[in-house]
Amino acid sequence: MTAHTLNQRDIDFLLYEFLDTEGLLERPRYSDHSRESFDATISGVRDIATNFYANHYQEGDKHEPLFENGVVKLIPPIKAAWDATVEFGLLGANYDYDEGGVQLPDVICKVAGGLIQAANSGSSGYYFVTNAASNLIRTFGSEQQKSQFLASMIDGRSTGTMALTEPGQGSTLADITTSAHVNEGSSYLIRGQKIYISNGDHGLSENIVHLVLARIEGAPSGTRGISLFIVPKFLVNTDGTTGARNDVALAGLLHKMGNKSATSTVLNFGENRGAIGYLVGEPNHGLRYMFKMMNDLRIGVGLGASALAYRGFLESLDYARERPQGRLPSTRDPQAPQVNIIEHADVRRMLLAQKSYAEGSLALCLYATSLSEDSKTADSPFDRRDAAILLDFLTPIVKSYPSKYGCVSNDLAIQVLGGAGYVRDYPVEQLYRDQRLNPIHEGTEGIHGLDLLGRKVLLNNGESYQMFLAKVDKTVADAENLPQIAHLAPPVRAAIERTNRVTESLLPRVVEDPDSGLANATIYLDMFGQVVMAWIWLQQAVVAARKLSTSDLGPNEPEHDFYQGKVSAAQYFIYRELPQTVQKAALLEINESTCFDMPAAYF
Amino acid sequence: MTAHTLNQRDIDFLLYEFLDTEGLLERPRYSDHSRESFDATISGVRDIATNFYANHYQEGDKHEPLFENGVVKLIPPIKAAWDATVEFGLLGANYDYDEGGVQLPDVICKVAGGLIQAANSGSSGYYFVTNAASNLIRTFGSEQQKSQFLASMIDGRSTGTMALTEPGQGSTLADITTSAHVNEGSSYLIRGQKIYISNGDHGLSENIVHLVLARIEGAPSGTRGISLFIVPKFLVNTDGTTGARNDVALAGLLHKMGNKSATSTVLNFGENRGAIGYLVGEPNHGLRYMFKMMNDLRIGVGLGASALAYRGFLESLDYARERPQGRLPSTRDPQAPQVNIIEHADVRRMLLAQKSYAEGSLALCLYATSLSEDSKTADSPFDRRDAAILLDFLTPIVKSYPSKYGCVSNDLAIQVLGGAGYVRDYPVEQLYRDQRLNPIHEGTEGIHGLDLLGRKVLLNNGESYQMFLAKVDKTVADAENLPQIAHLAPPVRAAIERTNRVTESLLPRVVEDPDSGLANATIYLDMFGQVVMAWIWLQQAVVAARKLSTSDLGPNEPEHDFYQGKVSAAQYFIYRELPQTVQKAALLEINESTCFDMPAAYF
Repeated sequence: MTAHTLNQRDIDFLLYEFLDTEGLLERPRYSDHSRESFDATISGVRDIATNFYANHYQEGDKHEPLFENGVVKLIPPIKAAWDATVEFGLLGANYDYDEGGVQLPDVICKVAGGLIQAANSGSSGYYFVTNAASNLIRTFGSEQQKSQFLASMIDGRSTGTMALTEPGQGSTLADITTSAHVNEGSSYLIRGQKIYISNGDHGLSENIVHLVLARIEGAPSGTRGISLFIVPKFLVNTDGTTGARNDVALAGLLHKMGNKSATSTVLNFGENRGAIGYLVGEPNHGLRYMFKMMNDLRIGVGLGASALAYRGFLESLDYARERPQGRLPSTRDPQAPQVNIIEHADVRRMLLAQKSYAEGSLALCLYATSLSEDSKTADSPFDRRDAAILLDFLTPIVKSYPSKYGCVSNDLAIQVLGGAGYVRDYPVEQLYRDQRLNPIHEGTEGIHGLDLLGRKVLLNNGESYQMFLAKVDKTVADAENLPQIAHLAPPVRAAIERTNRVTESLLPRVVEDPDSGLANATIYLDMFGQVVMAWIWLQQAVVAARKLSTSDLGPNEPEHDFYQGKVSAAQYFIYRELPQTVQKAALLEINESTCFDMPAAYF
Repeated sequence: MTAHTLNQRDIDFLLYEFLDTEGLLERPRYSDHSRESFDATISGVRDIATNFYANHYQEGDKHEPLFENGVVKLIPPIKAAWDATVEFGLLGANYDYDEGGVQLPDVICKVAGGLIQAANSGSSGYYFVTNAASNLIRTFGSEQQKSQFLASMIDGRSTGTMALTEPGQGSTLADITTSAHVNEGSSYLIRGQKIYISNGDHGLSENIVHLVLARIEGAPSGTRGISLFIVPKFLVNTDGTTGARNDVALAGLLHKMGNKSATSTVLNFGENRGAIGYLVGEPNHGLRYMFKMMNDLRIGVGLGASALAYRGFLESLDYARERPQGRLPSTRDPQAPQVNIIEHADVRRMLLAQKSYAEGSLALCLYATSLSEDSKTADSPFDRRDAAILLDFLTPIVKSYPSKYGCVSNDLAIQVLGGAGYVRDYPVEQLYRDQRLNPIHEGTEGIHGLDLLGRKVLLNNGESYQMFLAKVDKTVADAENLPQIAHLAPPVRAAIERTNRVTESLLPRVVEDPDSGLANATIYLDMFGQVVMAWIWLQQAVVAARKLSTSDLGPNEPEHDFYQGKVSAAQYFIYRELPQTVQKAALLEINESTCFDMPAAYF
């Protein structure tokens, strides 16, 4: 079976036509690079994704991690995948040369990550979470912490975790109860239980570096009293060698519906003498540090969701092209040959919907990554700030849209296959199970709805929000000037005006009576996500229409068909998905209150 | 853990307030019965559902059927469940006394079935499919076939299957290639392969009675050349005792995403000497017989989907009532106690949506069953005919709406639980996996869309369609006269007018250019389903509002809260789900053609 990950032609389109990734080469940090070095990285990672990740996709689902005799056992291909990833240099590839990296732009690393996630979502987590944790130490850790821990997270001796959630607290980080007591030297003793910790224990690496949120004795209650600690599984001597076992114990493995090759754990910190932890940065600023990294991890979740949707799309597309079944409604002769199911209009609908979700979500996540890049390496400080605040604004959508519609997309992949989609001989049912995690972790949809409507829209006096609107205006104007797609501009303009009306009617309520004003925040997030996605598609259509109008590509040429496919998917999205926002806007504008008003006793 | 099946108060409401099940007692067939005998049946089955089905829900998922040494092995509780079901007399309970039944109305048997499906969808299939197969033999079999096979399917010595699908044909029954050759006596020799056959092999019963679609040598091509055969696993002697093994072999088990305790098989008929089969009814009329029963099976699928959604709703409702997490947005004090998550507006939205899907779908399926009842036992032949053609018209929706929105519902149940919803300690992830089969089997959504728009709307010169509209008109008029719910009437009336406009604009195209006219048939099905569901909810609201206005129930009385809950759920559906039909109607009215126009090469 071909291992599907992401379509290379589309990657090229997104990097070099939709985004201006070659433009990065003019920035000093990337002066040693070239399009060739970017493409070679992607090609190398595609091989790793195929040979070391896709190879055990189903095996990892069948044989999930086991806790036996105090040790977590993983199937051997997971270790091989980790080693291949390390050996290729993917961990820290975006870091500076003097940190052990090769100064690759984030967007190239994210494409690399997407290839791996599409190949094997569960096993990709060892790389992803380690990367997120090492980014945090790199940004906020002391020099000593970097020398003790960071190097080992780049060369693969250590993996990392992010230990936030506790059994009694769930999404509400304010209620964290894990405690930290001052210990000898500069260390602390950490005590508490954490749950749903990915990669919490396993034998892939010599050591595991846990980043743990905890409260220092006497700290203020709520979010302002949370600090961040490095708590290694094994203590690390000052020379970097591995020392004694720390007081961190695996309380149990969690058994999930999907993503089974990832290890999800319950961890006990400090059941005995207390787990030794090292404070990162200042006391009580832990959430701020964590959230800075969390935003990158949220792009990562969106990217993973896009990758799963993308693979489901490609798998069902292949099936639809090769599976003969039935005839067109106009065919009356029962002896006429069967057609391949891609000829059925309803199958094309399911494929086009998937194409719009999958390619659109990938485009959104890479766009967000380009904002992250600009926030760090754009020439002008104004551009850096603009990119940072726009990214901050869009992050709830970058995480949530791909997650929600990734589930819809993988559902359609099953439906295209019919009965075959429900059996484990085909990968689409596993993609569906793996995908279902994404609307939950790194902030549920509900949490991101509150974040968008309750915080992000108002942030910087609404400056980020206005910046987004201006960008859409620009794209709409571009589209209006291209005859092939001019008809797609008015619906997007109308959607923006509608969104504005809704936002203006909701904001006073959010401020005056937040319980009622935020009651439909998840619907607002959903509506806004569809508007953002319409814009992403209109941008892709602008690029494609320009290519089609300025080149002499004829029908049946692959390049012509590729660009036409982009235009068709944009039209699909703007004609058939975007209008769903009308109903959402209508109920938001009156702040429809049936759910808010429902007493619990009526259920 | 409490085993959730269906809410008993709601069952009573649906049977005795929403439907007039007590009115059946006036029909001669039910003169020996009473509300007490109905309720005793339901109560007895609830015990069986709890003790014999819910007890192995997770175990059956973990230990799926195995094919070892030529024998299919099931976990022992499945056999115990089958035996308990047989012993209770549920198989054939709706049959006449002289057939070995107890003349229970179908609607009581369907409620019984729903309780079992909610408790354990996979294991319920042994009962359901056997029942469907025995109904077919009962209706169309010869007296000899009934005496040889039917009795054993009532007393549990035989289970049954429906063997339609073949590997090369999928949904297109016209392409069936399994062949039947005249054999000695009145029998045939059957040769061919069937796939996705539920209960195709196992050791629950002495014998298995396969109902097989095949083509008699020389029969016309297409659907007009298909005949129906009884092909037992073991031949049956004329005295009813079990004879030699027939030439039916298990080619393999299918391993599914959910419904794992059901056995799904590939069967080879007649690999060696030919499998002996007995023709049911006339040659070449097999599809007609099969479809008559299929319609009942389709209500059964809708019912199963409703039951899974219902259980997910109850599981997540319990969780939301007991799980403290977070505070309301207006609470600024981080030391204020946490609230149970049912207090969060977005959680209430997810619960209310589930309530509307689950209770609404169950109401729809029981209403369809009451039509089936009326088609057989209503006093007047006119009423019988009216019920039959209305049921025929609604069947695509009765099968499809609960299946599609059951998946949405079980998705929300996971989301209410958050991370806990994704792990196998809670049943909601399994419900989600089990549910995903329903939009596929017994006709995919696409097939039912074509059936509704391409056949059912036009059937009897549109008489059934008009009959449906008249019924909605009546309910709208009732609602207009009840002050508490009068506001819910206009949106339903508007939806009906919209649906009419759409249907009138589409029908000429369906006739003139079916490929284009039917291109959006699945969207039409979805829109029509939401309109039907709005009507079902408006009817429930009418009943509830009458009770609230004529009784002196005060707030906080359970009965008051129950009826208010019905009104709130109706309002939720009509205000927040029904408006989704506006966008669907708009694209149907112009017959939006992006998907239809998309050449395969553009993907």
